[in-house]
Amino acid sequence: MLLDQIDDPKRLKQLTVDQLDQLAEEIRQFLIEKLSLTGGHLAPNLGVVELTLAMHYLFDSPSDKFIFDVGHQSYVHKIITGRKDQFDTLRKYKGLCGFIKRNESEHDVWEAGHSSTSLSAAIGMATARDFKGEKNRVVAVIGDGALTGGMALEALNHIGHEKRKLIVILNDNEMSIAPNVGALHQYLGKIRTGRQYQKAKEDVHQLLNKIPAIGGKLAETVGRFKDSLKYLLMSGILFEQFGLSYLGPVDGHDTEALLETLKQADRINGPVLVHVITTKGKGYKPAENDSHTWHGASPYKIESGKMVKAVGPPMYTKVFGDVLIELAEQDERIVAVTPAMPSGSGLLEFADRFPTRMIDVGIAEQHAATMSAALAIEGMKPVFAVYSTFLQRAYDQVVHDICRQNLNVIFAIDRAGFVGPDGETHQGVYDIPYLRHVPNMVLMMPKDENELRQMMKTAVDYNDGPIAVRYPRINVDGVELMPELTSIPIGTWEVLKEGESGYAILAIGPMLKIAKEASELLIREGIDVEIINARFIKPLDNEMLLRLASQHKKLVVIEESAELGGLGSAILEFYAQQGIDDMSVRIKGVPDLFIEHGSIVEQRNEVGLNALSIVQLVQSMKAKRKRNAN
Amino acid sequence: MLLDQIDDPKRLKQLTVDQLDQLAEEIRQFLIEKLSLTGGHLAPNLGVVELTLAMHYLFDSPSDKFIFDVGHQSYVHKIITGRKDQFDTLRKYKGLCGFIKRNESEHDVWEAGHSSTSLSAAIGMATARDFKGEKNRVVAVIGDGALTGGMALEALNHIGHEKRKLIVILNDNEMSIAPNVGALHQYLGKIRTGRQYQKAKEDVHQLLNKIPAIGGKLAETVGRFKDSLKYLLMSGILFEQFGLSYLGPVDGHDTEALLETLKQADRINGPVLVHVITTKGKGYKPAENDSHTWHGASPYKIESGKMVKAVGPPMYTKVFGDVLIELAEQDERIVAVTPAMPSGSGLLEFADRFPTRMIDVGIAEQHAATMSAALAIEGMKPVFAVYSTFLQRAYDQVVHDICRQNLNVIFAIDRAGFVGPDGETHQGVYDIPYLRHVPNMVLMMPKDENELRQMMKTAVDYNDGPIAVRYPRINVDGVELMPELTSIPIGTWEVLKEGESGYAILAIGPMLKIAKEASELLIREGIDVEIINARFIKPLDNEMLLRLASQHKKLVVIEESAELGGLGSAILEFYAQQGIDDMSVRIKGVPDLFIEHGSIVEQRNEVGLNALSIVQLVQSMKAKRKRNAN
Repeated sequence: MLLDQIDDPKRLKQLTVDQLDQLAEEIRQFLIEKLSLTGGHLAPNLGVVELTLAMHYLFDSPSDKFIFDVGHQSYVHKIITGRKDQFDTLRKYKGLCGFIKRNESEHDVWEAGHSSTSLSAAIGMATARDFKGEKNRVVAVIGDGALTGGMALEALNHIGHEKRKLIVILNDNEMSIAPNVGALHQYLGKIRTGRQYQKAKEDVHQLLNKIPAIGGKLAETVGRFKDSLKYLLMSGILFEQFGLSYLGPVDGHDTEALLETLKQADRINGPVLVHVITTKGKGYKPAENDSHTWHGASPYKIESGKMVKAVGPPMYTKVFGDVLIELAEQDERIVAVTPAMPSGSGLLEFADRFPTRMIDVGIAEQHAATMSAALAIEGMKPVFAVYSTFLQRAYDQVVHDICRQNLNVIFAIDRAGFVGPDGETHQGVYDIPYLRHVPNMVLMMPKDENELRQMMKTAVDYNDGPIAVRYPRINVDGVELMPELTSIPIGTWEVLKEGESGYAILAIGPMLKIAKEASELLIREGIDVEIINARFIKPLDNEMLLRLASQHKKLVVIEESAELGGLGSAILEFYAQQGIDDMSVRIKGVPDLFIEHGSIVEQRNEVGLNALSIVQLVQSMKAKRKRNAN
Repeated sequence: MLLDQIDDPKRLKQLTVDQLDQLAEEIRQFLIEKLSLTGGHLAPNLGVVELTLAMHYLFDSPSDKFIFDVGHQSYVHKIITGRKDQFDTLRKYKGLCGFIKRNESEHDVWEAGHSSTSLSAAIGMATARDFKGEKNRVVAVIGDGALTGGMALEALNHIGHEKRKLIVILNDNEMSIAPNVGALHQYLGKIRTGRQYQKAKEDVHQLLNKIPAIGGKLAETVGRFKDSLKYLLMSGILFEQFGLSYLGPVDGHDTEALLETLKQADRINGPVLVHVITTKGKGYKPAENDSHTWHGASPYKIESGKMVKAVGPPMYTKVFGDVLIELAEQDERIVAVTPAMPSGSGLLEFADRFPTRMIDVGIAEQHAATMSAALAIEGMKPVFAVYSTFLQRAYDQVVHDICRQNLNVIFAIDRAGFVGPDGETHQGVYDIPYLRHVPNMVLMMPKDENELRQMMKTAVDYNDGPIAVRYPRINVDGVELMPELTSIPIGTWEVLKEGESGYAILAIGPMLKIAKEASELLIREGIDVEIINARFIKPLDNEMLLRLASQHKKLVVIEESAELGGLGSAILEFYAQQGIDDMSVRIKGVPDLFIEHGSIVEQRNEVGLNALSIVQLVQSMKAKRKRNAN
C-alpha cells in the first residue's frame, strides 16, 4: 500500500504520476470503507481525489495556502496530511472534524463550513503575502454551486481588480447540494461541451488566418477579436471579464492533465481560474449514480450501496414538508423558497406536488430573503425554508427588507439548536438572539410535531408581518397528530404541568422533555415545579409572566440556544420593564462558546442541557433561599 | 411652469418629447433650489431626471412596479407623484423621507436604503405577477456601484434562470458613493467606448458577409459566432451570459433615445437589461464637477456652489481617521478595509498617506469581513471601517469567519446609535444585540473623542481575537486629546461620578452626557447618583457590577441602541447568572420599533433618551421603593 507510506504531503513528491494514480485508487477504497462505518461527505471527496493529490504534489503546503470552500471536501487533504488514522472518529465527539480545522494540522489554514468564503480568504491571504513581501502560493478550491453565493461574486470582482497572483480552482461537478440552478450554472453547462468549442475555435482561427492583409484598421480590429474570440470560445469569458485568466476545462480525474494545467496556472503572474470537471462519487457506483443522496452519507453497506437507516419516527423536517403540502393545497398563495436545500429542508415532495410553487434560488440566502419580501408585498405567502445557521447570511435582509417593511414572510427555520456531527459551523444556536431584537418579528418553537403543524397553520393565518417557526434537527416524539389545523393565539404560552413549590421551569422545543425529566427527579425531593411551554419566544406571554411573578418568584429558563440575548434575557427584560424586582430567574442555555461536533446529546451534556443540571440549579436556588431565610 | 401642472404621472403622458425636456429642466431647477435649503442626495437625482420621466411617460405606475435600488435617487419620482410641495420638509422630522416610503404614496412600492436589493425585489414581484396571471411591468433601477453587491449578483443569476419578463435599468454613472472599484467597473468602463465597438461590430459583420460559402460546418459555426460577436461587441456579454437580453448603452440625458430603448426593452418577453449612461449632478456644475462631494449635500449657496458647513468641532469619524494614521505610522501591519465608504468612514487622508494599505472592496460588506479574517490569519491588523447598519450585511461572516476562528480583526463601527436624516434604514441601533452574543467578540464604545483614540490603541494592542469600537455620527465634545496613546484594560468600566443615594446610572457614549444632565437635576431632589462609563459592552466589568450590587441595588442603564438584547440585558443576565436577585435594573434604550428620519435629538426625544425621562425613571423607582417600604 502506497497510502501507508504517506503521512506527510512531502512524501507525495517522490511518486511518479502512475503511483499518484495508484494512490488515488487506494484513497478511494479507504474513503469508501471508512465512511461506510462513520458516514460523512462521501461523494464530494471521491470527486476531488486526483485534484487534491495534484495540488499537494505540485505545491508546498503549508507554506502554500490551500483554501477549501465549505471544507467538506477536505478528507483527501486530511488523509495525506497525517490524519489517516483518525478517520474512525470522523465527525464524532472529540474526533476528527468533518471540515477544515486549524487546530488539527498546520496544513489547515482556513476554516469554513458555510459556502462561498474561499475567494475572499484567498485574496486576503494573497494581499497579506504581498504586503509581507513573501512568495507563497494561494490556492482556493470552490465548487460551482458555491460560486453562485453573492460573496463569492463580490470576491471574484475584487480579485479581478487587484490582479494579485492566486489560483482559483473551480471544482465543477454540476451539483451544489441540490442540482444547481441559475444562469451561472447554465453558463458552466455550455462549457462542458468543451470539445465542440475547441474545434470551433480552431476553425475560426483558420478562417481569420486565411483573410489576407485587409487594410490597417480592420486588421487591427480583427487582431483584437482574435483574442476575444479565443476567450469566447473557451468560454472562460465570464471569468476573463471579471479579470481572471482562465484555464480549462480539464478532466479532474486525469492526473497528468491536472498537473499540466496547474503548472500552467502557476506560471501566470496574476489571478487565474482553473476549470476542473469532476464527477461526484467517482469510483463508487452508488454514489456516482445518485451523488445527491450520497453528498452527506449515513453509514452504508459497501456492496449493496444501501445506507443503514435508523428505524424510528421521522424528523421534524419531514413533518414540516408534509404540513406545507397540506396548507398549500388549501391556499394557492403559498410558495416555498429555498437556497439550494430542497432535500435538506424536506421540500422534495412539495416540489413534486407543486413544481411551479417551488423556488430554488441556489446558494443565495440574501436574495432568497429579499425575494420573499417582494413576493409578500405582491400578496403571496412565501415560506422561506432555511437552516438556522444559514439564515445568518440574510440577517440584514431580514431586518431591512422583511421586518422593516413588516411583510408577511413565513420563516421555517430548520436545524434550530445543536445539529450534531456538522459541529460548530452549523449549530443553530444564534437565531433567537439575532431575530428577537428585530421589530415586528414573531418567533415560535413547537414542543412537538403536532404543535409544529399548528404553528405552520398559525403562520399562514397571520397577516400582520413576518413570523418564524424554528424546529430542531431531531426525530419527532411520535405524538398523535391532530388532523385539523388550528391557529395558536399569538403570544400565548401553555402550562404543561402545574406546580406548588414556587418554582417554574420555562422551556422551548426539546428542552421541555428535559424539564419534565428534571421535574420528575425534583418531585422526589418534594419540589413540585410548574412547567411552561414558552412556545412564543416573541412576543412573550405577558399575562402568564405576570401570573408567574405573583405566584412563584423563582423561574428556570431552558433553551438550546445562546444564553446571551435569548429567551431568558427576554424574560429578564420583561420583569425589569415592568418594575418587578423580586424575581429569581436562572437561565440554562448555550454558554458563550462555539460547541464542536459530536452527537446532539453529547453537545447538550457538554453545556449542561440535561435534567441533572436543571435539578442542581433548582437545588442551588433553594439552598440560597434557605441561607437567606436564616 | 409645466411642473405646476404635474401632480400625477398620468399628466406626463399628454406631453410632447420637447415638453418632457422642458419639464426635466424645471425639475432640475426645482431640485437645485429646494435642496440648497434642506440638503439631500442632489447629484444622484440630477442624474436620473430624464430617466425617471421616461419611465413614467412610457409605463404606468403604480400598476407597473418601479423599484429604485437604495432609493435615494427617487426625488424626481416623488416630485411627479404628487409630493412636490413637501420638499421643504425633506429628510426632516415627520417630513418627506429621503428614500422610497410605502406610506407616502401608492407609487412607492419597494423600500430600500441599503444597496443591491432591487433585483431580488424585481424577480419577486415578477414571479408573483406571473403566479397571479397579471400583466403589469416590473422595472428596477440599479446603479453600477450597487451591482457589485453580492446579493445583486445572486439575483442576476436567478433572473437569468427564471426568464420572467422584467426590465433592469443599469444606471451607470461611474460612481457608487466612492469611485467604484472592481473588475465589474472596469468592464463597464470598456462599454463606455461604445462607438468604437459599434464601428468594429459593423466591420466584422462586413467581414463575415464577405466570406463566401465555406463548407457547411464552418458556415454554421460562423453563423453562431455572428450572434456571439454581436453580443461581445456590444459588450453586454456579461449580462447576456447571465441570461438577460442587453440593450444600450444609451445616453440617459437624451429623452428620445431613452424612450426608444425602453420601448424596445418592453417588447422583449423575458428579462432585459437596459444600460443607461448618466452624469451625476447633471445640470449643476459644482455637482457635475465633484459628484462625490455632492452625492449627499448639505445646504448650499446655489451661485457659489459652497456648502454651508456648520462651524464646530469635528465628527467622531474624523478623529477615528486621524488616530488610525497615527497608529498605522507605528505599525505596518495595519491596513484599512472599507466597503466603498472611504470618505464616509473618514479614511481619505489615510488613503493619501498609505495608498497601498487602503483596501476598498466596493459595496461588498460580506467579502470585506471575510477578507479581513484572512488578512488577520496571515498576521496583518485589518481595520474594517463600516457603518453599524451596513455591518448587518456581514453578520454571518463576523460570526463564522472572524469570531469562530477568533481572529484579530478590528471593527471600527461608525454611525452607532441614531443617524438623523437618513432615518430608519440607517439607524445604528442593532450592532450591540447582533454582536454581543457572538463568542470571542470584544465590544467597546468611547465616552468622548479622547477615549476613542485610546480604544483604537487598545484594539491594535489586543491580540486575543476580534475587537470592535463603535462611535456615533455626531460632533465630538472638544475635550483635550492626550497625545500619548495607552491601552485600556479590557472589560474595565470607569466611575465618572460617585454617588451616595443607592442609585447608579450606567451609560455608554453620548448617553453619558444625558446621564450627567439627569444627575444634575436629581441632585436638586436630594438623589446623588453614581455615574458609570460602561465603555466595555462586552466583556462586562464584573468586579464593578458586583460592587454595585453590594453598594447600590438600583441601576439605570442608558443606551442609544435597541433595548432588546443590549447592554441592559447583559447586566440583567450577569446578575441572574451570579444568583444576585435583589437588584432593581431599569433599561432606557430604543424600544422595539423602527425610528424614522429627523434630527438625532428629535429621534432621541421620540424614545425618551433624554435627561428628563431618566429623572422620571429614577423618581418612579424611588416612589416604588417608598410604596414597598410602607
